[in-house]
Amino acid sequence: MAGKVFFSVSMSLDGFVAPESVPLDDIFAPENQDDPRVRHWMAQWGELQQWIFPLRFFRENLKLGEGGDEGRDNDIARETFERTGASVMGKRMFELGERSWPEDPPFHTPVFVVTHTKRDPWERLGGTTFHFLDDGIEHALDQARQAAGDRDVRIAGGGTTILEYVNAGLVDEFSVTVAPVLFGTGTRLFDGVDASRVALEPLRADPTARVTHLTYAVRPR
Amino acid sequence: MAGKVFFSVSMSLDGFVAPESVPLDDIFAPENQDDPRVRHWMAQWGELQQWIFPLRFFRENLKLGEGGDEGRDNDIARETFERTGASVMGKRMFELGERSWPEDPPFHTPVFVVTHTKRDPWERLGGTTFHFLDDGIEHALDQARQAAGDRDVRIAGGGTTILEYVNAGLVDEFSVTVAPVLFGTGTRLFDGVDASRVALEPLRADPTARVTHLTYAVRPR
Repeated sequence: MAGKVFFSVSMSLDGFVAPESVPLDDIFAPENQDDPRVRHWMAQWGELQQWIFPLRFFRENLKLGEGGDEGRDNDIARETFERTGASVMGKRMFELGERSWPEDPPFHTPVFVVTHTKRDPWERLGGTTFHFLDDGIEHALDQARQAAGDRDVRIAGGGTTILEYVNAGLVDEFSVTVAPVLFGTGTRLFDGVDASRVALEPLRADPTARVTHLTYAVRPR
Repeated sequence: MAGKVFFSVSMSLDGFVAPESVPLDDIFAPENQDDPRVRHWMAQWGELQQWIFPLRFFRENLKLGEGGDEGRDNDIARETFERTGASVMGKRMFELGERSWPEDPPFHTPVFVVTHTKRDPWERLGGTTFHFLDDGIEHALDQARQAAGDRDVRIAGGGTTILEYVNAGLVDEFSVTVAPVLFGTGTRLFDGVDASRVALEPLRADPTARVTHLTYAVRPR
């Protein structure tokens, strides 16, 4: 049986999945760490993802050491990882990660990068291999489905890539982890969604002390 | 002890609290009921508020007859009503309601309308009296606080009025009922929020079969 196509992202209560965009070179330049735009980006990103960092699964998966919080947030993070047989991501998310993931990145599966630049596969430690595909989002998804086998394909991000898959009718279900923060500006997850075509069916809602995980099936309308 | 200032609204998953604006005269003109803009407005509004209409409390409060659904959604609707000693609303919300509320409107308390037009109080059946105030949002809130006594003041809407109160630091807590629908366009609840000043503390999350009610305290940051 083929797996599902899903995404799972953290979203601010006002609908943002990333802070206002800052050029990657600026984010990673040590001399820019006091730049207000970079500090703002880092602070917002941190607030959005804050629920993840203390989790036992997060620490284990990135080999940061023993310990960490258990409970529902941790179970959800682990389940999201375990169901994923392959991931698809956009170019900017890859480029951000390329500079920040460790040698043994957190995927441990094939990852298909939707890009316009040809590049040989990039094999990392721990089972993560990045494949670069320049033949559109459907082709990238087909490759990911094959690689995932019975498991699910995760559209890992960023927001623009996720929305392309949603609007193409290629997403079966998704989870949005609503974080208790307002961004005001940034990348909105659903900005440009084709609302006339997408209906949502609530599947689950998991409130925890930090966040609320909302899971929906996507239906045509 | 003085009551709290709160708001409670239904919000689409992509952050909208109202469909794309249509002139009120168009909405209420019988000859416009086939106008695609009006139909779209009505359809989206209906989807957003769908969780409310079947509730026992909704039917009871509007004197629509016996019966209706009980359960957590109903309890929340009733609690929201019972804590409210007075409401504040913007001009457009009033004008929309003026044409659609029954003679015995659903408030049963004083309602303070923030407007630029002087007008005598408008007393309706069942304890609802509308007062029209043209001296700014703080003055309207002061009047509402006095009228509410020990009970809470609800900033009833619309989205623009709610945001003015949030950005002025005058809201203590709020509930957002996340409905399983995407709007794509319309009035965003937090569009223009002063994110640098508003921090959120999650108080409660109540998932039900239809929606998820998220409640936050507003803190300065």
